Amino acid sequence: MKSEIIAVGSEMLTPFRQDTNSLYITEKLNGIGITVAFKSIVGDRQKDLVNAIRTALGRVDILIVMGGLGPTEDDLTREAVAEALSLTLRRDASQVAALHARAAGWRITMPQNNLKQADVLEGATLLPNPNGSAPGQWLDTTFGGYRKLIALLPGPPHECRPLFDAECMPRLSVAVPPRAIAVRTLKAAMIPESQADKLLAPVYTTYTDVETTLLAHTGDLQITLICSKQDPDAARQRVDELAERIEEKLEDWLYSSQGDSLEQIVLYYLELRQATMAVAESCTGGLVAERITSVPGASRSFLGGAVVYSDELKTSLAGVPAELIARHGAVSAEVAKALAQGIRARTGASVGLGVTGIAGPTGATETKPVGLVHIAVCDPQGSDALERTFRGDRQRVREWAAQQALDLVRRRLM
Amino acid sequence: MKSEIIAVGSEMLTPFRQDTNSLYITEKLNGIGITVAFKSIVGDRQKDLVNAIRTALGRVDILIVMGGLGPTEDDLTREAVAEALSLTLRRDASQVAALHARAAGWRITMPQNNLKQADVLEGATLLPNPNGSAPGQWLDTTFGGYRKLIALLPGPPHECRPLFDAECMPRLSVAVPPRAIAVRTLKAAMIPESQADKLLAPVYTTYTDVETTLLAHTGDLQITLICSKQDPDAARQRVDELAERIEEKLEDWLYSSQGDSLEQIVLYYLELRQATMAVAESCTGGLVAERITSVPGASRSFLGGAVVYSDELKTSLAGVPAELIARHGAVSAEVAKALAQGIRARTGASVGLGVTGIAGPTGATETKPVGLVHIAVCDPQGSDALERTFRGDRQRVREWAAQQALDLVRRRLM
Repeated sequence: MKSEIIAVGSEMLTPFRQDTNSLYITEKLNGIGITVAFKSIVGDRQKDLVNAIRTALGRVDILIVMGGLGPTEDDLTREAVAEALSLTLRRDASQVAALHARAAGWRITMPQNNLKQADVLEGATLLPNPNGSAPGQWLDTTFGGYRKLIALLPGPPHECRPLFDAECMPRLSVAVPPRAIAVRTLKAAMIPESQADKLLAPVYTTYTDVETTLLAHTGDLQITLICSKQDPDAARQRVDELAERIEEKLEDWLYSSQGDSLEQIVLYYLELRQATMAVAESCTGGLVAERITSVPGASRSFLGGAVVYSDELKTSLAGVPAELIARHGAVSAEVAKALAQGIRARTGASVGLGVTGIAGPTGATETKPVGLVHIAVCDPQGSDALERTFRGDRQRVREWAAQQALDLVRRRLM
Repeated sequence: MKSEIIAVGSEMLTPFRQDTNSLYITEKLNGIGITVAFKSIVGDRQKDLVNAIRTALGRVDILIVMGGLGPTEDDLTREAVAEALSLTLRRDASQVAALHARAAGWRITMPQNNLKQADVLEGATLLPNPNGSAPGQWLDTTFGGYRKLIALLPGPPHECRPLFDAECMPRLSVAVPPRAIAVRTLKAAMIPESQADKLLAPVYTTYTDVETTLLAHTGDLQITLICSKQDPDAARQRVDELAERIEEKLEDWLYSSQGDSLEQIVLYYLELRQATMAVAESCTGGLVAERITSVPGASRSFLGGAVVYSDELKTSLAGVPAELIARHGAVSAEVAKALAQGIRARTGASVGLGVTGIAGPTGATETKPVGLVHIAVCDPQGSDALERTFRGDRQRVREWAAQQALDLVRRRLM
């Protein structure tokens, strides 16, 4: 079955805000075998909304409309659906009482306008919204002679998403033919996109019943496999079989076959080895530490580290000899290695990581371009180091460098 | 004039990828007085695309279609526009030659399919694409008796955006009535949303000729003012007048009236005071340092700091007495202050910042809930400290804490 998601709100037609609810809802819909065929974003104008709703009902079976259910004059979703389907709106008495009770609880007089939120489409079921004042609505109706399922949801994500899960998913699950969906996400680091394509396309294109999505972002490749079948075992088997073939092709580029992040994997290996880690970062300015500490429980293996932006701090916090910096420059293999060894010694961690580079836009020299990064990792058995030159602006260079640094640690721990 | 942006590509109907080109293009269109009335996302099916294109041409004057111009079977934008408008496609000889030259330059045999990219809509102008093989197309035509301007652009952002700027903006500027647009962005930190609304709505709602957008995100409030008039001075004057009234209302919540980021403002004040800064962060795990070092030239005032995740590092890197941690706990006002003073002493910075807290999901005690954060800042004149309890998951608590920490420094430097 095909669905369309309409996000309502003029703010999402500005350069400043984007609909994100639809990503969440798409994942849930795909999970029960419902395709999203169109997404639309419409402003708070009733005429435009009616137009968009009629267009959608002409081309899909399931319509999700998010936003425009609040109490203000700009909230026109109820009115627009009523107009598009030639339905009446009735004011629901128990909903009116609930709105009054809510206002009384806050000790405020309820503005008359608020009562709009108690208006219910002819034939619709109200969907309770525990996180806000506007309830959702569910309509099982016909348009142009075909059955249509329509859900109206509030726009704020913390209202929209729980309401969709609690009220729409069970209703949609009984409406669609039962399908089992198997999903796997594989992840690889630092493999060039063209190389990944060349390696993987000949494999996954032969699995026409598995939908394969490749998503690459600054050195991180995410491969999602989705298979939908009536038989759950058959779906699972196809996904696992393809996953295994992709794993073989990716060799040690692959870092997770279960969708974990690179920082999770690094922490997983550290725990496995009963090791601890500390970092000394210059050009990444805290990004490596920030990624690692974003994982709950990181404190079990990650001690911390130093952001050594100035040369003096490279010496005072990470123990890099000043004369080493003077001789080789702050961005050098020698200093990266000294950072890794120094922070390891200072903190007593078993693994030390050092990152130094030129993020730009300034700081380049005749021999050292913007984007040049030196990374080193050391542990009791020895050390690894590498030099890379990344392209892109300051933010991109920093992201690439952090990704490469985490991958170097992963490979060292593997 | 009203426009619609259609993003073409099945990958943007998955949970994994979202159109972002439209935000860029919306900003540019708004800048010359063109409203975006609808945005649509359509998969790679010709029937769906034709449907979406006809719907768009029925409701707007300007249509921007992004994506679907490549060489593969899935690239159907040219064919769909031709069908929607009953136009023919002709293969452009010079474009065929250019594709052959490109392939020869790469020493590859050109697949026959690639020649699709040389197909031009009847009456269209080819728009050169210096960053890719598929050119854009520009069509000035009629639909249903009305003039319509249609631009076809490649999907990859680094092709789409420069091509839009170089080829579409000049053409659109002459097509729309000349308007001058004045824009100002004001920014405020840590003001509760409800309070901002209450303070500002009575002011900006009286400026009906200025479009005011409020965007709040983890303690950061961005207020954008846009005014479009025939007279540039009149537009500028209205925006400046409203900006001044908003500045008054926001008092010292306001940190920039020119759209700067909070970290830019902190660095600005540091330079102004000829001061340097270092941070010692625990729960934010490097996020404060990462934000500051994301600004080009941060190294002029920011020395660096320590990510002191373990108690031992709080002592060894930031000089917090172990007995202080034992007595008050790592998350305490005393330790925040000792972190600020310790990192200041260790690094020789004029300003020291200390952040310690419980980001969650674990780590809470009977007296210290998840979300509790202590922050302290010190300089030669003294110190400031505060305690906050933030709500939300680990990531949200970390983001709130980093924002609050930067704001505390700003207020100290002000």
